[in-house]
Amino acid sequence: MAPVTREECAKRDAEDPLAAFRGEFRLPEGVIYLDGNSLGALPASVPGRVADMIEREWGRGLIASWNDAGWWDKPRELGALLAPLLGAAGDEVVVGDGVSANIFKTLVAGLRLNPGRTVLLGEDGNFPTDLYITQGAAEITGAEERRAPARPDALEEALSGGDVAVLLLSHVDYRTGELRDMAAITEIAHRHGALVIWDLCHSAGALPIDLDGCGADFAVGCTYKYLNAGPGAPGFVYAARRHQPHLRQPLSGWHGHARPFGFEPDYRPADGASRLLSGSQPLVADAALEASLQVWSRVDMEQVRAKSLALTDLFISIAAPGGTGPDGLRLVTPAEPERRGSQVSLAHPDGYPIVQALIARGVIGDFRAPDVLRFGFTPLYLGYTEVFDAATALVEVIESGEWRDPRHSRRSQVT
Amino acid sequence: MAPVTREECAKRDAEDPLAAFRGEFRLPEGVIYLDGNSLGALPASVPGRVADMIEREWGRGLIASWNDAGWWDKPRELGALLAPLLGAAGDEVVVGDGVSANIFKTLVAGLRLNPGRTVLLGEDGNFPTDLYITQGAAEITGAEERRAPARPDALEEALSGGDVAVLLLSHVDYRTGELRDMAAITEIAHRHGALVIWDLCHSAGALPIDLDGCGADFAVGCTYKYLNAGPGAPGFVYAARRHQPHLRQPLSGWHGHARPFGFEPDYRPADGASRLLSGSQPLVADAALEASLQVWSRVDMEQVRAKSLALTDLFISIAAPGGTGPDGLRLVTPAEPERRGSQVSLAHPDGYPIVQALIARGVIGDFRAPDVLRFGFTPLYLGYTEVFDAATALVEVIESGEWRDPRHSRRSQVT
Repeated sequence: MAPVTREECAKRDAEDPLAAFRGEFRLPEGVIYLDGNSLGALPASVPGRVADMIEREWGRGLIASWNDAGWWDKPRELGALLAPLLGAAGDEVVVGDGVSANIFKTLVAGLRLNPGRTVLLGEDGNFPTDLYITQGAAEITGAEERRAPARPDALEEALSGGDVAVLLLSHVDYRTGELRDMAAITEIAHRHGALVIWDLCHSAGALPIDLDGCGADFAVGCTYKYLNAGPGAPGFVYAARRHQPHLRQPLSGWHGHARPFGFEPDYRPADGASRLLSGSQPLVADAALEASLQVWSRVDMEQVRAKSLALTDLFISIAAPGGTGPDGLRLVTPAEPERRGSQVSLAHPDGYPIVQALIARGVIGDFRAPDVLRFGFTPLYLGYTEVFDAATALVEVIESGEWRDPRHSRRSQVT
Repeated sequence: MAPVTREECAKRDAEDPLAAFRGEFRLPEGVIYLDGNSLGALPASVPGRVADMIEREWGRGLIASWNDAGWWDKPRELGALLAPLLGAAGDEVVVGDGVSANIFKTLVAGLRLNPGRTVLLGEDGNFPTDLYITQGAAEITGAEERRAPARPDALEEALSGGDVAVLLLSHVDYRTGELRDMAAITEIAHRHGALVIWDLCHSAGALPIDLDGCGADFAVGCTYKYLNAGPGAPGFVYAARRHQPHLRQPLSGWHGHARPFGFEPDYRPADGASRLLSGSQPLVADAALEASLQVWSRVDMEQVRAKSLALTDLFISIAAPGGTGPDGLRLVTPAEPERRGSQVSLAHPDGYPIVQALIARGVIGDFRAPDVLRFGFTPLYLGYTEVFDAATALVEVIESGEWRDPRHSRRSQVT
């Protein structure tokens, strides 16, 4: 296959059906941002929406805004806005708390829905908070934490003992960018009597998701990566409608109560996914999410997926054609499109200074120990020419050896 | 005692050492806001700080702001800013998650620090989320939930069995405005071998607090009432330094890990209060809190307390002198200043329409079922003349019967 030229990339940008969305995001001049899988870019509508929320709803509306501005129902309203991106019904998703807390809630809820089973099964190498929260949930419930590789055959084996209550998996691996087959793995788990929680942190807003269609039980995710809601923005949690009447989660705060303003002495869970809520949510942060989700409500996820795969293909074809690049650079992300999220990971023993040298050129990716260079692809605000330039810069940085400059080797605290 | 005149109130306003703070808050024209105990008013510095955080730190700094803008350490930095208001050391407080989650963490941590004891003791009539979360924690740990009246004698009796691991109390009762004697009750609990969690939702920013001096074990609280950080703003949690090396909480997410960027396979708690953190925090909401705490860093809490008591005395002297007011209006809040928070609660069977009629006059208080009219007093942005006018309006609303107008009886969802 002949290498792609920059001119061909410019042509693809001109024909890109998603090109207009670029104007709805603010990015600094001179930057090619390939870290939207860690922190999404700023939607242009966010500053105005947040300012309005602060000055009008809070400053002038004051306490009356709990009713007048719909604050009380915001976790449900935002959940319903988000649901189409997840293949969920509007009443199966609520927004609130963070990923860690929502993993805890759903692990415990899953254990209770699956009595007699005592194992919480996770995946080797999952994002640390998934692992750590599972350990926390196992310790407090007396369940046993186990891990297995996230391959269908290995999961089938780990599930075959019939003692797994809940399986927690990431839909896309944060380090490798591998996309898991949600339908197939959910079917395997169900066949062995286990429930599944899907962590969608690296897939929500990155590709089409079909929770209902796959028969998923629970899902959690963040909104600050591909969903562009701002650093640390509130998380979401999904519970399939069939589980809602029976599920009981331990963070049983008053926002999840059936009659919160009844001030009843005892907890009674609300109907539906609302019972997964705990306490008051940071509504200033919710306002940013609201503005971002209004952009997403106009996006065709099939177009996003098509462009995402085209962008990652393009990047790979320049940086690591056939799976390898300059100086032993190695493709970590699966080459098969159907097994790839919206991210390209490459391995190199000097990954850290290489990423730093790229950042010095204005190409922002990130590094994950021990040797992974991560590049995220966000079709709403990235073009083909930019990806061409970024991949070319990566090759040049490695071939020129400019990453050996000592100023690129100093580790900062957050990498 | 001769009744206070409006002229005398104007003189007190002119002499008020806190008067200059009024200009640091934005309030609508024509409103006397006595609901800062539910949602604090907007500090004038918040819109600018939040806009800067969104546009510069997020929009331009992007992922680098985790280091460059200090995002990673924000929970500790904000905790240290808040600590002086709580009588705590800077390393005993972190900001993150909500009150409900932090109650859950500290209840479970307290149980683990007190092995062999199986009872979680709460107070009759505490704010519902405190009760509901205690039920959730009891269910998951196998502990027993009990409640007692929050009087020293009743608590002494409830603690005397020697089986109470943790006592959870509100420092100020949300309904009655009663202030509990933190030092005395903490001493009683410790004498009986129990640990104490103080819920400071209605005292933080309302009066001086001395957690360290009282020997408190844990504390939790919100920042959206007297601390003016905006609706649903992140909560805080305190752990006395002596407990920090041993405490283990179940929401063991990666922000509480000893080496979060080591991506280790197993959870190891961080040193200090950081181990009470779970996951990423909503940093846009944190920016509002930061701006508000910068106001608080210039405030003398003894002056706040003196003015708070003067304002509540003034309000009571007009609305319910000697404990009763027009049409059987009855003072619920203790008359003794040392037993009073920064709130006046009054009881009347028609409390709901009376509060609505007052709101129609621009005096904003709130109502708590079944019969309590609540008025919060926030010395940074309330003056004596305003309180005089508010109390006078309350008397007029009741005496005139204008609350009987049917438009004041329609219940809205959030009261």
